[in-house]
Amino acid sequence: MKSSAAAHPNIAFIKYWGNLDHDLRLPANGSISMTLGGLQTRTTVEFDPDLSQDSFILDGAQAAQESLRRVSQQLDLIRSLAGFPYKARVQSENSFPAGTGIASSASGFAALTVAACAAAELELPPKELSRLARRASGSASRSIFGGFVEWHKASTDEGSYAEQLAPADHWSLVDWVAVVDEEEKEVGSSQGHRLADTSPLQEARISSAAGRLTATRQAILSQDFATLARFAELDSDMMHAVMMTSNPPLHYWRPTTVEVMQRIRRLRSQGIPVFYTLDAGPNPHCLCPEDRAEIVQEALLKIPGVRRLLRAEPGGPARVLSEAD
Amino acid sequence: MKSSAAAHPNIAFIKYWGNLDHDLRLPANGSISMTLGGLQTRTTVEFDPDLSQDSFILDGAQAAQESLRRVSQQLDLIRSLAGFPYKARVQSENSFPAGTGIASSASGFAALTVAACAAAELELPPKELSRLARRASGSASRSIFGGFVEWHKASTDEGSYAEQLAPADHWSLVDWVAVVDEEEKEVGSSQGHRLADTSPLQEARISSAAGRLTATRQAILSQDFATLARFAELDSDMMHAVMMTSNPPLHYWRPTTVEVMQRIRRLRSQGIPVFYTLDAGPNPHCLCPEDRAEIVQEALLKIPGVRRLLRAEPGGPARVLSEAD
Repeated sequence: MKSSAAAHPNIAFIKYWGNLDHDLRLPANGSISMTLGGLQTRTTVEFDPDLSQDSFILDGAQAAQESLRRVSQQLDLIRSLAGFPYKARVQSENSFPAGTGIASSASGFAALTVAACAAAELELPPKELSRLARRASGSASRSIFGGFVEWHKASTDEGSYAEQLAPADHWSLVDWVAVVDEEEKEVGSSQGHRLADTSPLQEARISSAAGRLTATRQAILSQDFATLARFAELDSDMMHAVMMTSNPPLHYWRPTTVEVMQRIRRLRSQGIPVFYTLDAGPNPHCLCPEDRAEIVQEALLKIPGVRRLLRAEPGGPARVLSEAD
Repeated sequence: MKSSAAAHPNIAFIKYWGNLDHDLRLPANGSISMTLGGLQTRTTVEFDPDLSQDSFILDGAQAAQESLRRVSQQLDLIRSLAGFPYKARVQSENSFPAGTGIASSASGFAALTVAACAAAELELPPKELSRLARRASGSASRSIFGGFVEWHKASTDEGSYAEQLAPADHWSLVDWVAVVDEEEKEVGSSQGHRLADTSPLQEARISSAAGRLTATRQAILSQDFATLARFAELDSDMMHAVMMTSNPPLHYWRPTTVEVMQRIRRLRSQGIPVFYTLDAGPNPHCLCPEDRAEIVQEALLKIPGVRRLLRAEPGGPARVLSEAD
């Protein structure tokens, strides 16, 4: 009753922000992402009839109470599917530091879901794993799959899951994450999603999402970088517009964030294919074709406020680890 | 047939961005501003039957062709009202430098309109001067009045003019303009207004403007600084959200812009009543009650990217100057 799994985080080109149903994490709009190979979470779950409660060790230390609560809630879903009540020991390690603007909840809850299902000997197809991961963290539904992924909006639990648009080797992109601020976020994403509807702009963002999804899906399938760049930047700016105008407002951009965005637009105006996109944090992800990765890296390293760069490429799906892994 | 007039620029708390009718400059939404005493444009207009064309000297030099064209167009309206065809010499001087984020078109076209009407011996009430100034530059309609001013949205030329909400001595506020970038704008406001409708967020901004106008009007009348601060920052962020998501996008924020915005929010969280608002440019206006002006000034001067501060207070209406002025 013990299994380990690994999963990658992902970066959304069309963002998830706001829910139709907060408890079920049914998103207000569909989203599209790239799974980030090179960064991963490894999680081991051991169900044990002798345990009186769940425990959760994260990066070598007892996890915070709120994190344990979310893990237990996800284990409850899996226990209910498996038909047993056993508590579990959970151990999880990230290959990337917390607070770097990399969504560890996506890779973390994807790995937890896959490991716990394997430990419970539940053999679920990826689509069902995606639905299940969604319950713990919306973006985790996308990290079940590798490569380029779309998560569907639906009004029911059954209908909202992710699917692969194209595998990791479809397109050699590089994502440089420019870490400009390593402080923990003041407002976590789960709380932020609840604020989305307080922005006068959220409804317009949602009602115009279908067009951006179609354009982005097509751009990925046809490897049309310029179109992907245009819609990904627009969608990122739209999500931050909603955040900034919610009540209370969420302002994630720092001075260096804006400097990186400016630099990226300037590089593009000089003919270098590159774009930025930001999750709910201050650290821009800067994406370019692999053969431009060095030029972009050099340009980013010249910005004084950029503390370090993390590199990622299209990665594979969440997977059960064998003893040898 | 010669007169001089002076007018102040203004800073909008509820912004004008986008038109129902570009030629008539009928705004997509109503707006509210404070007239900025301490900064002014002085303009002299002399109609002369012997001239074969209009001339326009701005700050001591021949104005650019495009500026002369806009001045002539405005003079045409006034010539048509006056019933004569005489060309004019126009001289204009700003007490504040161009490209500092102070809308010189508002004070400039208000002063031009008042001076030209006086030179043409047209005696128009302020409301009519406001309508007329609007034709040259939307925000100039507000600079006809002193103090706190509302410009009404309407679907006809007759219905869209500004009115005073409260005189300059109603509320002792100070506006510190933090100059972070003195470069000329790449995209002027007239051109920008035409892009507003390309943003998926503009309609939501417009349809939610009535609530912000009501709240802001009430906040001014009752001197409720906290409410004014909340709605002015929200409205400024909403206008920039529309700008950033238009096609092509307009990104006016610089790294230091965001640093000033952060600093202002932090000051407020420390109990100092202050808020920011930005026009179509990178330079934040930071408003506070007069008795907090020094604290805010000190905080702004500590930000390395702030090149200088301009100070303004509620100012008077546009007025004809006598020989003695």
